[in-house]
Amino acid sequence: MNNRPIGVFDSGVGGLTTVKELHKVLPGEDIVYFGDTGRVPYGTRSRQTIRKYSAQCMHYLLGQGAKALVVACGTVSSNLTDEDVAQLGGTLPYTGVVLPSARAACALSSEGRIGVIATSASIRSGAYGRAIRAIQPSAQVFGAACPLLVPLVENGMLQSGNQITRLTVEMYLEPLMRENIDTLILGCTHFPLLYDIINDILDYKVTLVDSGAAAAQHMKALLLEQDALSGRTEGGSTSYHVTDTVEGFAGVAKYFLREEVSGNTTVVDLDTLADGAVKLPVKE
Amino acid sequence: MNNRPIGVFDSGVGGLTTVKELHKVLPGEDIVYFGDTGRVPYGTRSRQTIRKYSAQCMHYLLGQGAKALVVACGTVSSNLTDEDVAQLGGTLPYTGVVLPSARAACALSSEGRIGVIATSASIRSGAYGRAIRAIQPSAQVFGAACPLLVPLVENGMLQSGNQITRLTVEMYLEPLMRENIDTLILGCTHFPLLYDIINDILDYKVTLVDSGAAAAQHMKALLLEQDALSGRTEGGSTSYHVTDTVEGFAGVAKYFLREEVSGNTTVVDLDTLADGAVKLPVKE
Repeated sequence: MNNRPIGVFDSGVGGLTTVKELHKVLPGEDIVYFGDTGRVPYGTRSRQTIRKYSAQCMHYLLGQGAKALVVACGTVSSNLTDEDVAQLGGTLPYTGVVLPSARAACALSSEGRIGVIATSASIRSGAYGRAIRAIQPSAQVFGAACPLLVPLVENGMLQSGNQITRLTVEMYLEPLMRENIDTLILGCTHFPLLYDIINDILDYKVTLVDSGAAAAQHMKALLLEQDALSGRTEGGSTSYHVTDTVEGFAGVAKYFLREEVSGNTTVVDLDTLADGAVKLPVKE
Repeated sequence: MNNRPIGVFDSGVGGLTTVKELHKVLPGEDIVYFGDTGRVPYGTRSRQTIRKYSAQCMHYLLGQGAKALVVACGTVSSNLTDEDVAQLGGTLPYTGVVLPSARAACALSSEGRIGVIATSASIRSGAYGRAIRAIQPSAQVFGAACPLLVPLVENGMLQSGNQITRLTVEMYLEPLMRENIDTLILGCTHFPLLYDIINDILDYKVTLVDSGAAAAQHMKALLLEQDALSGRTEGGSTSYHVTDTVEGFAGVAKYFLREEVSGNTTVVDLDTLADGAVKLPVKE
């Protein structure tokens, strides 16, 4: 039994979709959320910079007493190696979104034709393809970098009739549809907000895998396995820690949580975030 | 006479449109360019964070021996006060993009109905409206925050037939067209790349003001006035300094310069950027 909170790290607000999923499967657990809103987005940055920022943010979450780490951000999950995670989190229960969503996709796929939509940095890393083929070597994986979807979601362009969003999603999905994918991993925290538009464009013929939901399930299994749950079955609370102002965070957070972020939000000074953090070795 | 370089600061790659304009009007001057590619975009961040990052970057440019400072970024220009600029740049010749483009717009506007398109942070600051009304109190100013245009440009969605870009530009311009603007300030470095699409949507009836070009002209006048030009009339070179990798910078820079960025690019370590920089007082 362990009453400490689960740490959830995301590059910005998108990880709130994972917080919602964690609340569903573990309603009694406290959560400490870190969103690097002062440096978001990560998905257009280099691997080296993504790893550096991640090391600083995960160090902060450990300092908040996290008993486990969920990396909700597809970009971070794809760009940290197992060695990186071991250096940053030690032996704490850890999950990113890549492995759980690869497992879910392999379990759900009928023909082994699996699509992945994610940020440019996630797709460039090749992490989803490696994880899927390690489970199911015969699987065919088709990736599409979708850099415009994050800004569309963050600007609230979510209505199913929104022509701009629809055309953009079609542009990205069209090559995957030509490959006759039967399963599609939504490999970025923002994409579940486009669920209806994506489903509609795919004519409901493709199984969608929400990577945040898969990660939440996986974390529950890890905590059970290690007997590290709090033992509470309701009343878990969340504290939010961000690197830009609270107002900016709250403004976008409402799209993700579908409710207002309550008062418990702290601003973390970026100038001090590097202090004491592990410096991961440079490698590409 | 002064052989030191002109410092150009931008949040990312967009300021390269201003570098091009400076080369046109001052072909003999050297330029030292700083793009904060590891923390771009600024246009969605809070004023406080924008001012903090700007102080660090301008400190770096002064350390490179800049004889003058051009802030090419509309977001930074709108969010630094005169006091901030005095604290950061002392008595060096300085221009942002707000004042020069406000002057150009007032000179060009026939009816005093002036539109401004820019990032959310620029529009929120109200800086363009204040600058225009200080010159021409009777002017009517209509601002539109256009957060999706920067990602569209950075992803190369520039072709005049691009339906997604066209619909997005129409969405933003439509309220300004209803106000019968006669002049439009392109208040973000990225927007000159959408010149043709914007002109086409406005049916060539509205005078466009390129804020980077206006700033370049203004810097020329300042350097002439202070006898601080190099005296050379050709052969000016540019060095580039960025906070994420060179490859990522070069990949996007080609849209802006319409040529490859040559070898002279340095990566600046973000962890050291705060060292020695002025800390601007917090105020909103």
